[in-house]
Amino acid sequence: MKIKPIGYARSRIKKHRYGGFGKTTTEIILNKKYEKALKGLRDYSHVIVLYWMNEAEGIVRLEHRPQGNLKVPVVGIFATRCQWRPNCIGISAVPLISVNKNVLKVKGLDIIDKTPILDIKPYLPDYDKPAGKVKLPGWTKRLIYK
Amino acid sequence: MKIKPIGYARSRIKKHRYGGFGKTTTEIILNKKYEKALKGLRDYSHVIVLYWMNEAEGIVRLEHRPQGNLKVPVVGIFATRCQWRPNCIGISAVPLISVNKNVLKVKGLDIIDKTPILDIKPYLPDYDKPAGKVKLPGWTKRLIYK
Repeated sequence: MKIKPIGYARSRIKKHRYGGFGKTTTEIILNKKYEKALKGLRDYSHVIVLYWMNEAEGIVRLEHRPQGNLKVPVVGIFATRCQWRPNCIGISAVPLISVNKNVLKVKGLDIIDKTPILDIKPYLPDYDKPAGKVKLPGWTKRLIYK
Repeated sequence: MKIKPIGYARSRIKKHRYGGFGKTTTEIILNKKYEKALKGLRDYSHVIVLYWMNEAEGIVRLEHRPQGNLKVPVVGIFATRCQWRPNCIGISAVPLISVNKNVLKVKGLDIIDKTPILDIKPYLPDYDKPAGKVKLPGWTKRLIYK
């Protein structure tokens, strides 16, 4: 199956790192032909961005220690959000700041400059907010997020 | 960029429809080589499933009226969760019921039998629960969800 970027990220953050994206503004520059596909998006407060973690392309680790942190266990890649997955697609739900022609601004998106963008979806609680109480393994508290 | 299924869905629901998935249990049958990539996943209560909406492969509608519902406006495809997107990848956050070898059971996943699965991610509020108050356009209340 083939996928193609619909655009790319423009950010002052140029190198991969853990955390420190919380206050960052990222521009998502879509291919101009998709400008009209954004109609109505600004009526949502949040979007989910799907992106291609291209630094990991072709690299798969079935088991992995998240963030190389010795205080967390080695677990299966599907029990992590790390990039060395069979399909290196990443997702993040973030506040949408603005839509201007083919350019979106979002806040706190944890991707670096030039990351290829695959899709923009509106955040809809009926699909994205899980039913019931959320439980996580304790070691996830030792990781660095956005 | 190329992606490949990591498995497929097994469900009693064979045909596309809007809604009626809420109480459905879906099995996700992963390729056996990914069994160990599931290590530790059962410690999470919820997962996000990424899947390939294969009925829409190759069909892109830049603007679309969600669910063909005449009570909702025509909007850009990125302002909807409809399948006719440039990359027909779907995502849903759902409760994880069980993990047994290479088979996951989840509840309320809105996909049909044999849908190709692209990725399984643990639901992590730091990435998936958006900061701030969620706002949606009023017409989204007229749609049918899971």
